[in-house]
Amino acid sequence: MPKRKICVVVTARPSYSRIKTALKAIQKHPDLELQLVVAASALLERYGTAVNYIKADGFHIDAKVFNVLEGENLTAAAKTTGIGILELSSVFENLQPDIVVTVADRFETMATAIAASYMNIPLAHIQGGEVTGNIDEKVRHSITKLADYHLVASKDAEERVLQLGEEQNSVFNTGCPSIDLAKEVQGLNQLSFEPYKTYGGVGAQPDLSQSYWVVMQHPVTNEYQNSRKHVETTLEAIRQQTDVPVLWFWPNVDAGSDGTSSGIRAFREKHDLSHVHFFKNMQGNDFLNLLDQSKGLIGNSSVGIRECAYLGVPVINIGSRQNRRQRGKNVIDVDYSTKSITEAMQQIEKQPRPTSTNIYGNGEAGKKIAEVLTQVELKFHKTIVY
Amino acid sequence: MPKRKICVVVTARPSYSRIKTALKAIQKHPDLELQLVVAASALLERYGTAVNYIKADGFHIDAKVFNVLEGENLTAAAKTTGIGILELSSVFENLQPDIVVTVADRFETMATAIAASYMNIPLAHIQGGEVTGNIDEKVRHSITKLADYHLVASKDAEERVLQLGEEQNSVFNTGCPSIDLAKEVQGLNQLSFEPYKTYGGVGAQPDLSQSYWVVMQHPVTNEYQNSRKHVETTLEAIRQQTDVPVLWFWPNVDAGSDGTSSGIRAFREKHDLSHVHFFKNMQGNDFLNLLDQSKGLIGNSSVGIRECAYLGVPVINIGSRQNRRQRGKNVIDVDYSTKSITEAMQQIEKQPRPTSTNIYGNGEAGKKIAEVLTQVELKFHKTIVY
Amino acid sequence: MPKRKICVVVTARPSYSRIKTALKAIQKHPDLELQLVVAASALLERYGTAVNYIKADGFHIDAKVFNVLEGENLTAAAKTTGIGILELSSVFENLQPDIVVTVADRFETMATAIAASYMNIPLAHIQGGEVTGNIDEKVRHSITKLADYHLVASKDAEERVLQLGEEQNSVFNTGCPSIDLAKEVQGLNQLSFEPYKTYGGVGAQPDLSQSYWVVMQHPVTNEYQNSRKHVETTLEAIRQQTDVPVLWFWPNVDAGSDGTSSGIRAFREKHDLSHVHFFKNMQGNDFLNLLDQSKGLIGNSSVGIRECAYLGVPVINIGSRQNRRQRGKNVIDVDYSTKSITEAMQQIEKQPRPTSTNIYGNGEAGKKIAEVLTQVELKFHKTIVY
Amino acid sequence: MPKRKICVVVTARPSYSRIKTALKAIQKHPDLELQLVVAASALLERYGTAVNYIKADGFHIDAKVFNVLEGENLTAAAKTTGIGILELSSVFENLQPDIVVTVADRFETMATAIAASYMNIPLAHIQGGEVTGNIDEKVRHSITKLADYHLVASKDAEERVLQLGEEQNSVFNTGCPSIDLAKEVQGLNQLSFEPYKTYGGVGAQPDLSQSYWVVMQHPVTNEYQNSRKHVETTLEAIRQQTDVPVLWFWPNVDAGSDGTSSGIRAFREKHDLSHVHFFKNMQGNDFLNLLDQSKGLIGNSSVGIRECAYLGVPVINIGSRQNRRQRGKNVIDVDYSTKSITEAMQQIEKQPRPTSTNIYGNGEAGKKIAEVLTQVELKFHKTIVY
Repeated sequence: MPKRKICVVVTARPSYSRIKTALKAIQKHPDLELQLVVAASALLERYGTAVNYIKADGFHIDAKVFNVLEGENLTAAAKTTGIGILELSSVFENLQPDIVVTVADRFETMATAIAASYMNIPLAHIQGGEVTGNIDEKVRHSITKLADYHLVASKDAEERVLQLGEEQNSVFNTGCPSIDLAKEVQGLNQLSFEPYKTYGGVGAQPDLSQSYWVVMQHPVTNEYQNSRKHVETTLEAIRQQTDVPVLWFWPNVDAGSDGTSSGIRAFREKHDLSHVHFFKNMQGNDFLNLLDQSKGLIGNSSVGIRECAYLGVPVINIGSRQNRRQRGKNVIDVDYSTKSITEAMQQIEKQPRPTSTNIYGNGEAGKKIAEVLTQVELKFHKTIVY
Repeated sequence: MPKRKICVVVTARPSYSRIKTALKAIQKHPDLELQLVVAASALLERYGTAVNYIKADGFHIDAKVFNVLEGENLTAAAKTTGIGILELSSVFENLQPDIVVTVADRFETMATAIAASYMNIPLAHIQGGEVTGNIDEKVRHSITKLADYHLVASKDAEERVLQLGEEQNSVFNTGCPSIDLAKEVQGLNQLSFEPYKTYGGVGAQPDLSQSYWVVMQHPVTNEYQNSRKHVETTLEAIRQQTDVPVLWFWPNVDAGSDGTSSGIRAFREKHDLSHVHFFKNMQGNDFLNLLDQSKGLIGNSSVGIRECAYLGVPVINIGSRQNRRQRGKNVIDVDYSTKSITEAMQQIEKQPRPTSTNIYGNGEAGKKIAEVLTQVELKFHKTIVY
Repeated sequence: MPKRKICVVVTARPSYSRIKTALKAIQKHPDLELQLVVAASALLERYGTAVNYIKADGFHIDAKVFNVLEGENLTAAAKTTGIGILELSSVFENLQPDIVVTVADRFETMATAIAASYMNIPLAHIQGGEVTGNIDEKVRHSITKLADYHLVASKDAEERVLQLGEEQNSVFNTGCPSIDLAKEVQGLNQLSFEPYKTYGGVGAQPDLSQSYWVVMQHPVTNEYQNSRKHVETTLEAIRQQTDVPVLWFWPNVDAGSDGTSSGIRAFREKHDLSHVHFFKNMQGNDFLNLLDQSKGLIGNSSVGIRECAYLGVPVINIGSRQNRRQRGKNVIDVDYSTKSITEAMQQIEKQPRPTSTNIYGNGEAGKKIAEVLTQVELKFHKTIVY
Repeated sequence: MPKRKICVVVTARPSYSRIKTALKAIQKHPDLELQLVVAASALLERYGTAVNYIKADGFHIDAKVFNVLEGENLTAAAKTTGIGILELSSVFENLQPDIVVTVADRFETMATAIAASYMNIPLAHIQGGEVTGNIDEKVRHSITKLADYHLVASKDAEERVLQLGEEQNSVFNTGCPSIDLAKEVQGLNQLSFEPYKTYGGVGAQPDLSQSYWVVMQHPVTNEYQNSRKHVETTLEAIRQQTDVPVLWFWPNVDAGSDGTSSGIRAFREKHDLSHVHFFKNMQGNDFLNLLDQSKGLIGNSSVGIRECAYLGVPVINIGSRQNRRQRGKNVIDVDYSTKSITEAMQQIEKQPRPTSTNIYGNGEAGKKIAEVLTQVELKFHKTIVY
């Protein structure tokens, strides 16, 4: 019997972490053939060139799709999706996959979902059903209604997908593959690499031996004109606390990302940040190792909600981006406020480290996903269950 | 206070019937300004040039969007959607609407939904929540998850939209505007126009004074390679019953429509169809008048499910296209089978005419829709209700 | 040494005839590898599905590009070119050709030229330098200025390309591959196939044993609103001369082609054309055989100027489309006038058959082209010669 | 009589300088109506947001077109052109211009030329006919063959356009509008603004009162992988000469621009450049004033060839980018070599200032262009002259 061809489309650095162990498991599975497409910001230097890490991890890339349209506005996001559909439909026609896999909920993942659905190719969606309260949620649930299989990361998410009228036998709670990666670094008890040497970056190179904070703050699509103001609030909190080193990660692409990026760039020119180093990006495992050894994570990344729950890393979650996502006791929610961020930093310094929780899986998600893709019946026809 | 700008995108002939009375009501409403965009097959001669009827009805067209990519395959449908997003986002940027309205569930309506959602323009969806059991259903529910307001056509549909996690105060059961049109022609008791003279078309011109059948059969996207075979089954049933005149309408655009069209064309060249006339299209009110005076409708058009329910016109509904849509007692469901179609025709000849039902509205939908668009709070942010 | 990868993009039925023997020669050449891309109207049923003939001729197709946007206007032609660039650049990235070949001067061939030039892939242009006096000429000379190698069909064309500032050693007068095909059918002295049986088509099936006229009339892009009126003039001339059978070929895609097509369709419904048969298309060799045995060709096809010159077939060339192309004594030029066409038909009946000329080659063009592509230095950098 | 609608498409910062006085003259002309479209890199922050200067100069913008596709490769340049055609054809359909004007020879100007030509809109080309010996030249001459009117900047250029077979009465030597701007600043004898205060930028802020060098180096498309190495050569020459201040301008968009930009960024992190300030961009008149007061210009900008000829500013022209453009005695040509650049700097220090020349116009180009656009016959049909 010929192997099932599983075509996975990776469109951004964070999505890669959320699918990597599944890619490995698909690659190794005797009944599956991996077709890997790298697209959108995952290809671009400005957003960390995730494609380089993908190659370094030993994956063969079957097609690259450049579809990010430049422009500091929401129209460009819409057009990026339109171009994505044009390009991906050609890619799918060439690769003739048995199943297409789309990951998470970034705006451009919709392009994968539409191209596959409209071409009658069975569509699997990783990480549907989550509740976050922003534009991502529109996209996420909309993709659920196009998808034929749902590989969700939590019990909560499973319930939402079923509520949306999907068939019980098309929903699989596999946990999140990002937790598989967290499991690997857990218990190293030290940094297994030299951050500055390995990843370059710019700014100061403070001594990390006495711990440090990690910052990762993305623009929030709904409020993109404010993204510069938002990041300045965080920068100011960081500037005031000069005693602990800070490792700051640039944001990934989004309408408004230039607001965040240019906010950081402008702040650096004006202010002394001699305890702060800036990274463009980092391989997933090193980043998790870094988080695991840190005092805590500051920002609005979903890594704080998921991986940090599993690792027991304290998180200061800023603003509305992760609004309604299920979270562990490691998270302190704050508003865009220098004062609130500062107080949360002080609170974390005083408290004991939080305990680990299994909300988003037990570290076997990748294998479970590959197994599901091997077993499910191939189909692209469905109707709402009620 | 400036008028609310309501931008409606019409992409196909049948969609126009399902929005026409709402367009009139928006145009007349003192608090609303209508922005009308005509796109996709609604512009093309091959599919009846709906745009001409729209102009004849006195509407000003703010933008035309040509986005139909030729090609007898599903890839072209995906690409048509991609091009639609590219074009519509520019149109929306020019028109700066307060609300965008997308109609029904054809594949290319997704382009309207994505462009508006990604640009943070509040999105209203007409005719969400219906259950039909085919690719249209994926598109329809997926659009529901992008839309901010839901103007549904039946009680049944309202329940489905609520199940999908939409807020109670964003769902409005207005009935279907197509019923408003049916109401207008009801009780004319005769044809108020001369079909051949007014609409041309090709083929024989049988005498219509002793009644006639109407046929309208669209290709079914999921099974497009079979569309030629399907239409031949119906053609053969029609060919055998030479005693009653038949008025046949060409299908609208879809992947596979060329299968249906070329099936009809080939059949005509080979067989004698001296009791059959073929129309390209007809203004909505004339078409409903024609249906109202006919023996019944044969095919798979949703007109049979909706307007014919209200008018009490018998319908032979072929195949899976209207599978799970709520229907009245006027409908006989049959498979793609010459024998079944023939038997259903004989059965209708024998039975009394069905009674009218109000499933899809009472004829006031257009006004109700305009009123809702005037009242709703402008918003583009939502989260799933559970 | 690895073979040179020669990527040829065929976008229309007539272009295929003008490259077919070169494709064969490239395929057979020990130093070359053929990469064949079929695009635009060459894929569409409405325009004769040239792709079927290409497959039937034993060619493997490396990529299909659907880029024809529907719409009866010039804007659609522009957009078709834009989509073509988007698609072809992905194709070239996948195929990594050493040389890209673009054929002739249809508007969409510009997409091939731009994608290749902008990607620094050496570009060869077949049939540059010809002078015809219409929009095609803008496209043709514009492509010459992008192309690195020029494989021209006549001495006249060679001079024009040199005048345009191209280097002497980049211009090669190979003759036109279409003449190679004409050479193959020359001297058969009879029809080697049964036209109606092999190619179907619609309309009457007049007896062809006592000769017949062939008609092929394309819309003229610059004047597309007139295309319906133009074709009606010709139809009327044909209608009046019922004594000689006529074989009419539908036009290929162009802005305005629907004017021509619908003109023919409407005329057929109204008038008796019992001596006329209509074909959608025909394999090149059969078509040439058909021409060679005919009384003459009527219309505005460049076949009349080239192949008919070599074959010595009389031609009534209507209107401006071939305006300034070098021609033999076989051509009578007429305006869009029923009377002039009729008189030219009478004149041809009276005169002896014209003699053959070698203006567009001696029948070895395919081999010469393959040889040039083997020999030329790979380069994509040039400057104007003056 | 209604005014002629002249639609000018500006796609980049440098193109704006080359059309600005013509825009003013069109705006003021009683018989003309200006329609201004701003597209591509002219809209993007990374490339200086030329659109802001355009607004500040009092122009109304009729449409913005975002079409730059991100990606550090040539494929993205091709696709940017394809998207440009899709977008601009919609813009032209909305604006219905009588004449479209495309400026110079950047790759994306081809999109303007194709959209206008294919839509039968008369096309005027500014700055055709120049000879430079790189990819720009392919684009430039290719546009000449699509354009209906040629507004050239020098006698030399006029001859090339005529050689290309354009009609004598369609070619106008108006001079270059950039010289009009140079004329305005000539003779100020001092800086009329404070560079650091007005334009920000990053890096050191050396004292400019004792003169300074200006550097502007663009990547060369044909050799984009080398652009990083090329810029490092210049950076090293600048680094070694610490005694004279340097004002460095970032490059505009091109395949490879990221090589240049990241080359500069990396060099700054490693080396001391305490005598160098970096600007993103500057209004045209201030930039010319700055050049006029400088020791000289270093790099490969065409400003060195044109405006500096008129102003008599010494220029060190690096590499092949301006290869064959006609030049005055103010230019020293050097290769990518730190040593050659250094020696040329020393030579300029020793010599007297060059005299001014009129090669590219006498400062009245804008008015002449507006006058030509008023007078020419509207036409979109042409044939090669030979």
